[in-house]
Parts: sequence; C-alpha cells; structure tokens
Amino acid sequence: MQIHKPYLLFLGDARDPLAAKTAQGVVDWRAEWCVGQLRLPGCNADCRIPDLTIEAAIARGARTMVVGVANAGGVLPGHWVATIVAALAAGLDVATGLHVRLGSIPAIAEAAARHGRQLHDVRISDVVLPTGKGTKRAGLRLLTVGTDCSCGKKYAALALERGLRAAGLQADFRATGQTGVLISERGIAVDAVVADFIAGAAEWLSPANAPDHWDVIEGQGSLFHPSFAGVSLGLLHGSQPDAFVVCHEPTRTTMRGVQFPLPTIQQVIDRTIADGALTNPAIQCIGIALNTEALDDAAAREVLERTGRQHGLPCVDPIRIGVGPLVDELLRRFPRR
Amino acid sequence: MQIHKPYLLFLGDARDPLAAKTAQGVVDWRAEWCVGQLRLPGCNADCRIPDLTIEAAIARGARTMVVGVANAGGVLPGHWVATIVAALAAGLDVATGLHVRLGSIPAIAEAAARHGRQLHDVRISDVVLPTGKGTKRAGLRLLTVGTDCSCGKKYAALALERGLRAAGLQADFRATGQTGVLISERGIAVDAVVADFIAGAAEWLSPANAPDHWDVIEGQGSLFHPSFAGVSLGLLHGSQPDAFVVCHEPTRTTMRGVQFPLPTIQQVIDRTIADGALTNPAIQCIGIALNTEALDDAAAREVLERTGRQHGLPCVDPIRIGVGPLVDELLRRFPRR
Repeated sequence: MQIHKPYLLFLGDARDPLAAKTAQGVVDWRAEWCVGQLRLPGCNADCRIPDLTIEAAIARGARTMVVGVANAGGVLPGHWVATIVAALAAGLDVATGLHVRLGSIPAIAEAAARHGRQLHDVRISDVVLPTGKGTKRAGLRLLTVGTDCSCGKKYAALALERGLRAAGLQADFRATGQTGVLISERGIAVDAVVADFIAGAAEWLSPANAPDHWDVIEGQGSLFHPSFAGVSLGLLHGSQPDAFVVCHEPTRTTMRGVQFPLPTIQQVIDRTIADGALTNPAIQCIGIALNTEALDDAAAREVLERTGRQHGLPCVDPIRIGVGPLVDELLRRFPRR
Repeated sequence: MQIHKPYLLFLGDARDPLAAKTAQGVVDWRAEWCVGQLRLPGCNADCRIPDLTIEAAIARGARTMVVGVANAGGVLPGHWVATIVAALAAGLDVATGLHVRLGSIPAIAEAAARHGRQLHDVRISDVVLPTGKGTKRAGLRLLTVGTDCSCGKKYAALALERGLRAAGLQADFRATGQTGVLISERGIAVDAVVADFIAGAAEWLSPANAPDHWDVIEGQGSLFHPSFAGVSLGLLHGSQPDAFVVCHEPTRTTMRGVQFPLPTIQQVIDRTIADGALTNPAIQCIGIALNTEALDDAAAREVLERTGRQHGLPCVDPIRIGVGPLVDELLRRFPRR
C-alpha cells in the first residue's frame, strides 16, 4: 500500500473522541506523518495537532487527507462528501478506513478521476484469502483480546512490538483493523473480509516464521460483544496464539455501542482459553493491559496494582507505565532457546 | 429474487456427494423445480434425476442452470466457465451460490450481455445491513446448530418448519446459506456478508414477530470448526434463539475439510448455551437431529435411541423418521397461550 505522506487528518463531526480513534492512533504512533487536523462544526474530538484548512495543509506539505473517524457500520455520511471532493480538487489523495469504497460514491469517483488523485480504501483488502485450516504454524504468537471494542488492544500490541524488539527479540505487529493498517502500512482489516474468511485472514496475516519469532497480533472487538464476537472468535482461531493479553478500560460501564454490561477480565480469560484451545491447546494468559487514560496517576496506580493482584498476573497501562512487566513475563514463560 | 424455473442443476466435477449439497438440497425440497442434472467427467455426485444436455434440458422447459456444487472458498473453477457460457448461449439464465460474482468473470459477463441472460449470485446480498444490536425481539426462535459443517442443519430446519406448521403453529424457515436461499427464495447467506455484519444479518433475517410465531433459523458451520466458527457465533448471537437443536452425522470421524476431531454433542450443547446466553439467557436445547443416511434402518434406530437416552432429549432423523418428537418437545416447553 503506497499512501503518500504526510497526512491531513479529517475528523468530520466525530461524536466523541473514541469515534476519531483512527486519527488519534495515527497521531499517537506516527506523529511525524501528520501535519494537522480538519474538523467540521460539531466535532467532539481533538487530536491536539494544528487545525488546518485544506490549503494550509497543502502549504505544509500534506499529500493525503486521511479520514480518521469511523462509526459502527462504517458508512460515509453524506455531509462529508463536499470536504472530500474539495480535498481532491485541491490536490490531495484521500484514504479512509470505512466499509464503503470511496469510489462507489459518484461525486468522489468523479472528482478523483478529474483531478488525477488516488483513493485508498484501507479497510478493504484485495488479497484472495483461503479459508482457515487450523493447521499449526511455526513461530510464536501473542494476541491482544478485550472486554470490549475500543479499549486498548491496538496500543497494547504496538507497545509490545516495541518492547519485545527493545528486549532483543524478533517481533512484528500484525494489523487487523484499519488504524493498525494505516500505522504499520500492512495487514488486513479482518472485520471487513467476507465472513467465511475471518480465520483464513488471520492465518494469512501471521504465516509460519522462525521458532523464536513473535507475531504480536492486534485483537478486534470482544468475544462478549453482541455485534462483533464472530470476528473476535475467527481471529482467535486463526491466530492460534500461544499467549494473550486482556485489554480493559476500567471506567467503562456498558459495552461500546450497545446496552450490554462489560464482562469481567476473568470471564474474558476463561472464555479465551476455552475457545482458543481449539487451535492451540497451550494458549495462556500472560497479563493484563488497562487503558487508564481517564484516571489520575494515583487512581491509575491503584487500579493497576489491585487488578494485577486479583488475577495473579502482571498488569500495566502500556502508555502510562509501559509494557516492561509483560515482556518480562513473556520471557519467563517462553525462555529464549 | 426472481429466478426463472424450472432448473437444470450443474454438478460440475463434484469431488463427493457433499460437494453437490446445493443441488441435492434443491432436489430434495423442490423436486418439481428440477428437470435434470448436468455432470462433467469425474463427477462423484449424483442427485438421481435425469442426466441431460443443455439442449435436452431446454426441450424439457428449463429456464435457468443452477450451479449446485460448492467448495471451501466458494471459487469458480476455470474449467466450468465453458459450460456456463454454453448454457447462456443456448438461452438459460445461470445462478450460483459461490462467493465469486458470476459477472466478475469476463467470459461469463460477456456471454450474458450478448445473449440477454440473467446472472444470479444467490450467496451475495445487496441488503445494506446494520451491525447487530443484541436487543431482544418479540417472537420465538429456534436455531439448528451442528457438530460440523454439512451435517443436516438445513434439512432439520426445513423439516421443523413443515412439522410446526402441520401442528398448527405459525413458523417460517429462515435461510442463512445459499442452498436455503434457493429453496425458500429469500434469506441471506450469512457466511458471505462482511464480517462486521454477521450478527446484524441474523437480526435482519429474523425480525420482531407475533409472540407465538416461530422463526426456524438454519444454522451454519459449528462453534468448533476452525475455519468457520466466527460465522456460527455471530449467527447464534444475532438469532437470539429460545431453543436449539443439535445436528450431527454419527459416522463422521473428522470435521469437514480440516483434520480436526468432531466435538461431542454434549460439548456443542454446553458451548451453545454458554455463548448463546449473551443475547438470550433463557436459551435451551430441545433435541437432537442425526443424519443417519449412511446407516441401515436397524443401525439408525439404535443410534437414535442410544443418543436420545444419553442426553435425555428427543433424538430424531428428520428425514428417516420425521421431527414429530421435536415438535412435541417444543410444544411441551413452550406451551401455546
């Protein structure tokens, strides 16, 4: 995937900061690619980079406008089309992580053709996937799983890639969602593949590798989310993880987008082992990652300490305190040969 | 969906009878729509209807050639294209239940355009689906679940629709796969929707209904199948079944298409209740349906009696002995108001 950098991030009228998590993810992990953000009236997200018009962004070198806001269903609201057309007319390519193809919207297709610009549908893969086979592959795999959507699975996986590499191990982040694909410039949004191929996509993403190589696979959704659990299960089966980390947002009270209570961390551990054992009977939980962004430092340290003690596992916030204890636990359980 | 009847069923070079289960399903449930079958050299399936050339089928009134053979991955082998083009040239429409769109194959698209024929991609729905919400809907629902793919879930559901209607209840078969869609002329192949929408498709398929109305929903795959369990889980969550029937083929030793052992019926009951409780805590197993086609009558009766006794549930072969005991059990547990 060749998306020209740097980017202007379009936040639209995101209803809350989590709705702009694609933009925020690119800013947090690839700040050097982002010249600014473009927000519409009513936008409730802010990535804390300069607010720029399309023209000002181009003056700062922007080559592509990345639509950094998503919603359940992955549709493109009609009132965003004018901004996208204006970006194309002004000389920017456009990339999105929505389910809908940009080129399927006539005004956008026409503007791209007229101005010779590229459209990137990051969520939609052109790979011809096989169905999953369940056959064991060489190499080690870690999957981040969640009590919910949007609770830190991608950040934990990206931080673990860094942490494992810093510890001298071979490790690769494997993106399974549109933001991860934008950040790592490879991968497949598994929630956008045809349903029969979820496990097959996970197998394709994480092929056989050296025996001591870690694939750190970005999890999706939750086995307990009534909208998306099928994606989570197929990803778990295809990933065949040797190890997993449970990700959780301790201040959330209902699951994202639906009126369902959150499962407990222990329920997620138990179900992940029960389901994951189908393709890897040795699957084990090696730790917990909490997203404590909503808490002050004292409250964060208290909940991290308490949660770790309750479960007898290392418990970190990958952003606030880093993944050191998770890397140590992984090395302890899977010693280098 | 308007597919002109009657049909010539194309079996290609199906590697075994199960590979032609789409054709066999249409023959078994809609024999009056089928004038004959067309088989290529090497075909190991036989639907026991007349072998006809395209011309002979047209002479008997055929309007559409239905590709009645499927494979894991849902691709169209290149050596079938000539037969499909010949059917179009001779005046037949063509329908398939594959993942690939017929119109995406240039020779087929061109032949259809030249001869003014229709192409039907039964597995691919044009419905714009919502994501699943998990909200409880009025009406009663029964889902057939399986120890494996291709073990009798669709036949059990179709037989239950008939049996419930014969008992005076309101009941509708809800098709979730290409063969079910061909038979019932409505529904959605849930294995072919974008992964984020599996549960949403199941909710769409089985909308709110009268309090004593039964939707009998065709199951897909198995929660224990390493290729397709994600589809099975999303379908279970979206269907919110009040009742389920476990379907099983008692002579099978490994799961279809992969080297995995079959789960036990009890494992399927326990996991279906554990997973299904997320969207319907009152979910219960009301019986077992065995596909005993491979057994003689005495062996079939023995395994039915033994399996029912082991699990304390009614156990039938819906085709060999009918679904009477399942209907009775459903009426006992869900008495009419």
